[in-house]
Amino acid sequence: MAGRLYGIGLGPGDPELLTVKAVRLLKSCPVVAYFCKSGRRGNARVIADRWIPETCEELPLGYPLTTEIPFDHPDYVNTLAAFYEDAREQLAERLRRGQDVALIAEGDPLFYGSFMHLFIRLKDEFETEIVPGVTGMAGCAAAAHAPLTWGDDILRVLPGTLPYEALVEHLQQADAAVVMKLGKNFEKVRRAFAETGKLERAIYVERGAMPEQKVIALAEKDGDDAPYFSMILMPGQGRRP
Amino acid sequence: MAGRLYGIGLGPGDPELLTVKAVRLLKSCPVVAYFCKSGRRGNARVIADRWIPETCEELPLGYPLTTEIPFDHPDYVNTLAAFYEDAREQLAERLRRGQDVALIAEGDPLFYGSFMHLFIRLKDEFETEIVPGVTGMAGCAAAAHAPLTWGDDILRVLPGTLPYEALVEHLQQADAAVVMKLGKNFEKVRRAFAETGKLERAIYVERGAMPEQKVIALAEKDGDDAPYFSMILMPGQGRRP
Ligand SMILES: C[S@@+](CC[C@H](N)C(=O)[O-])C[C@H]1O[C@@H](n2cnc3c(N)ncnc32)[C@H](O)[C@@H]1O
Ligand SMILES: C[S@@+](CC[C@H](N)C(=O)[O-])C[C@H]1O[C@@H](n2cnc3c(N)ncnc32)[C@H](O)[C@@H]1O
Repeated sequence: MAGRLYGIGLGPGDPELLTVKAVRLLKSCPVVAYFCKSGRRGNARVIADRWIPETCEELPLGYPLTTEIPFDHPDYVNTLAAFYEDAREQLAERLRRGQDVALIAEGDPLFYGSFMHLFIRLKDEFETEIVPGVTGMAGCAAAAHAPLTWGDDILRVLPGTLPYEALVEHLQQADAAVVMKLGKNFEKVRRAFAETGKLERAIYVERGAMPEQKVIALAEKDGDDAPYFSMILMPGQGRRP
Repeated sequence: MAGRLYGIGLGPGDPELLTVKAVRLLKSCPVVAYFCKSGRRGNARVIADRWIPETCEELPLGYPLTTEIPFDHPDYVNTLAAFYEDAREQLAERLRRGQDVALIAEGDPLFYGSFMHLFIRLKDEFETEIVPGVTGMAGCAAAAHAPLTWGDDILRVLPGTLPYEALVEHLQQADAAVVMKLGKNFEKVRRAFAETGKLERAIYVERGAMPEQKVIALAEKDGDDAPYFSMILMPGQGRRP
């Protein structure tokens, strides 16, 4: 009988923010797989560290280097597709052998992120279970003590990769917003907040729920870039009796 | 010394989807407070049941009956404000006495929900810590095996309480959407999906991550209303190599 694929959300960074179910499954799965930069341990693996038994087989899936290739170039797409195909095969081998495999994912597995690319390649052949996780967004709101949405507020989650004009249009109309994937997009995103007069409402959170966590007003953030694990929150102002 | 207020996210419904941190705090807090309909146990209390020690003082906060009064009527606002004021005082009494208080919340505490109304009334007087939780949204996506957002997808979270025209406008433009707070709004929301030609992309999830969980295509849902714990997901279709 084939093994079962578990997609396991790890939460925003604090190892105590895994769910009880995630911990139970990590303790019992014979194989744990995770994405990482080639040769590095990877953030997901670090978050899950204390919950992975020594007897567990580890399957690091090292991303190919694509930083020099633009997102929409065929070489980028082909390189990534080949990478996911190869990763798929490594997991499928264990699953066919009857081993359960835990594929771990930062935050929630179905909210952006690489997990889904393997999930859609495996779900028709193997039984799959998703263990939802606390999103980075919820972790950052908690770190900032910032209620995100009230009453009839509409929340928009915006990737920082969007063009400047799209960011401006959305921020103009938004009740509440979260901007993820900052990195090199940070300066553009901050300009869009300034342009729409919403700079004063925005909070910058770096590495929420991690030991180096930083929470400041966006207006006070120095420098023109931001690390991978950072986001901007613009809390809603909806109905509150 | 005053006690500390913990705002504790319980996740979408499965007691195993509490975080390790939430469980640790529930086991050690001398007081646990929760919202409920007067005289009922309340869903939050049910989800947390197995994690609350018998020695813990329970503080049920019974909502006043407001179903007959419209949201924007001053009587509604005044009744609720008085309720939150009274609840605030009950928690403050324990906190001043030096007891830590766990105020539990379904899903994530800062994502819609009543927790925030007490939080803003207590946070300036007492030390507060928020424990983020798995949202109902993440729980429902996992139940549906539905990747919610990919690549550059923008996600809109829409309360079903919005006017029909607003729902139509947002669904028309949305990459990915989640509609919460269905209940009596269900029929209106389904019409908005039909109007925008997006009915076929929508998934209806009832009581995600609870024993009575139900996942079906929105197009196949019978009847014109939905229970409180239900939502509609329209997954994104963004970049996927
Ligand atoms: C590819 S997405 C993955 C999101 C993840 N699946 C989740 O549910 O949060 C990566 C982005 O999530 C955001 N993020 C995730 N965790 C974070 C944290 N702990 N602190 C700050 N940002 C975080 C950052 O904006 C980052 O660029
Ligand atoms: C007041 S909001 C609270 C949201 C909560 N704080 C969270 O993070 O999910 C209540 C709405 O959340 C949605 N919801 C929460 N949990 C759910 C579940 N397990 N299944 C379906 N819908 C859920 C429903 O749409 C419901 O009307």
